[in-house]
Amino acid sequence: MKSALKSRIVSAVEGDLEQIEAALSNNLTPNLSLVKDIAGHLLFSGGKRLRPLLFLLSSRLCDYPDDLAVRFSTLFEYLHAATLLHDDVVDRADMRRGKQTAHATWGSPRVVLTGDFLLARSLTLAAETKLPRIIKVIANITEEMSQGEIDQLEKKGKLDLTEAEYMAVIQGKTAVLIEGACKSGAIIAQAAGEKEAALCDYGHHLGVAFQMADDLLDYTADARTLGKNPGADIREGKLTLPLIHALAQADEGDRRWMEKVISDKEFNESDFDGIVEKLHLYGGIDYTESRARDHVEQAKKSLEIFDDCESKNIMMLLADYAIARNV
Amino acid sequence: MKSALKSRIVSAVEGDLEQIEAALSNNLTPNLSLVKDIAGHLLFSGGKRLRPLLFLLSSRLCDYPDDLAVRFSTLFEYLHAATLLHDDVVDRADMRRGKQTAHATWGSPRVVLTGDFLLARSLTLAAETKLPRIIKVIANITEEMSQGEIDQLEKKGKLDLTEAEYMAVIQGKTAVLIEGACKSGAIIAQAAGEKEAALCDYGHHLGVAFQMADDLLDYTADARTLGKNPGADIREGKLTLPLIHALAQADEGDRRWMEKVISDKEFNESDFDGIVEKLHLYGGIDYTESRARDHVEQAKKSLEIFDDCESKNIMMLLADYAIARNV
Repeated sequence: MKSALKSRIVSAVEGDLEQIEAALSNNLTPNLSLVKDIAGHLLFSGGKRLRPLLFLLSSRLCDYPDDLAVRFSTLFEYLHAATLLHDDVVDRADMRRGKQTAHATWGSPRVVLTGDFLLARSLTLAAETKLPRIIKVIANITEEMSQGEIDQLEKKGKLDLTEAEYMAVIQGKTAVLIEGACKSGAIIAQAAGEKEAALCDYGHHLGVAFQMADDLLDYTADARTLGKNPGADIREGKLTLPLIHALAQADEGDRRWMEKVISDKEFNESDFDGIVEKLHLYGGIDYTESRARDHVEQAKKSLEIFDDCESKNIMMLLADYAIARNV
Repeated sequence: MKSALKSRIVSAVEGDLEQIEAALSNNLTPNLSLVKDIAGHLLFSGGKRLRPLLFLLSSRLCDYPDDLAVRFSTLFEYLHAATLLHDDVVDRADMRRGKQTAHATWGSPRVVLTGDFLLARSLTLAAETKLPRIIKVIANITEEMSQGEIDQLEKKGKLDLTEAEYMAVIQGKTAVLIEGACKSGAIIAQAAGEKEAALCDYGHHLGVAFQMADDLLDYTADARTLGKNPGADIREGKLTLPLIHALAQADEGDRRWMEKVISDKEFNESDFDGIVEKLHLYGGIDYTESRARDHVEQAKKSLEIFDDCESKNIMMLLADYAIARNV
């Protein structure tokens, strides 16, 4: 079922993805080959291009001509890649998408600066739109993301993280950029305010659902599918919704045991299996799935004001895919 | 003479500096107190506010109203502070302006993210100008600076660095931002093309002169005045013009000895004194001073097209100050 959904989406957007791919390469014009290497390592390592695609689909839903939109769409992938590069440095993660991270290969200094370069690249493209409101969205995304990351850093290892705090973290970490891509699609097409608001809502709920699904994968996927080590979030001291919910529901003995495992960064595989068991026992997995499904439904509902069309269809499928994907 | 020049400038711009200072504090509105601490550590530790001041003076030279210019001027200080924060992480320097650096206090992750936040802050202000050309200048500054920093990183320890390579490094490191501040002052005032070009030239030459003077200080100032250790550039493997020129002029024996000291990061104080002696002997100091003076003259000449006025006077004094300062 999952893979059927994926094939339907892929065949519907194949042409768009090819154009986005070409534009990503054409618009990346650093003077230094090293920057191209580092940026390319991440940019061309099999990302889903979700953000440019959402910008493109949103702009199309508001009747903006495609030829310009493709070029501008790349700014959201550059921005995404910039934040991933800085996150790698911040998290000191060694693996991402199954590959060694850039900072493990090139060292933090080069990676920080390449992130800055990609941020600047996305800014240059934003300036080309000649729409100050787009620039404002991009600036806001960057502000919120940097503050969100610091917020997450400060909360590392916090065992009594609340669901509200978790929601604030994933808003800054994921939702703000996806929301910004959809919103910008409406702005560039100079769509009516209600369409812009609807696309904002869609992007917000989609982003939240995507991140919740991603956080579930850390407990449910095997390492090969995930391209990282399962349990990486706990090891990094990041409490996500499945665990937050289970901790809140657990009896005292189980809660203490779970807190001990989380605090002990050297826990072994059977400890991790034990944690996963508790997540099921106390409904952490089910609860997160159900919250993610709610957000998918809200995302789809946001699109009601648009007439039926191919772009809307794809965006509805993408919302379903947010929680159905296994990669 | 130096301090007389400084007092003349300070008394002429005192009111402006106060306004800039207040605006810097008002426009910095992070949601997290930690971001405010880290950003404030650098922003309010006695910087010269040269970049906002140059933007303000340039816009005034092109008849732009002051009240708006002060607010926008802060974006150049935020941008400058963002690059300094990332540079600290890149260089792993422990001291700057006589204080412990942010990354030594808070650790690299928080500092990288606070740099991103300040970059976003400057972007938000740029968007407020509603002038896509300003955004383009800011994007271009960020691109050039990040590439310039990587370029410098790649050239670390390169003993045969040429004067042309040095010029490219300081263009990206310092001149592009100062040039951008002056240029933006003209753009915001919607000045004629020739005025914009003149202010660009002024900023470029001023920036180059400033950096050359800064590079000289590493060999001529004592640690207390400098707020960092003299010889820090050599220790970090950064060859600057005084040394590049002396190496090119030295006889083989002296050149080999100098190269040995530079390559040996553990050199002692008497080695460093020996290097300074060679810089004098082979004209590295004189040559750099003379090149810096040339750029000051070119900066002043660029202003010829403007009628005499207070702003022009101050900008002429600032050009002289670029090479006269001892802090």
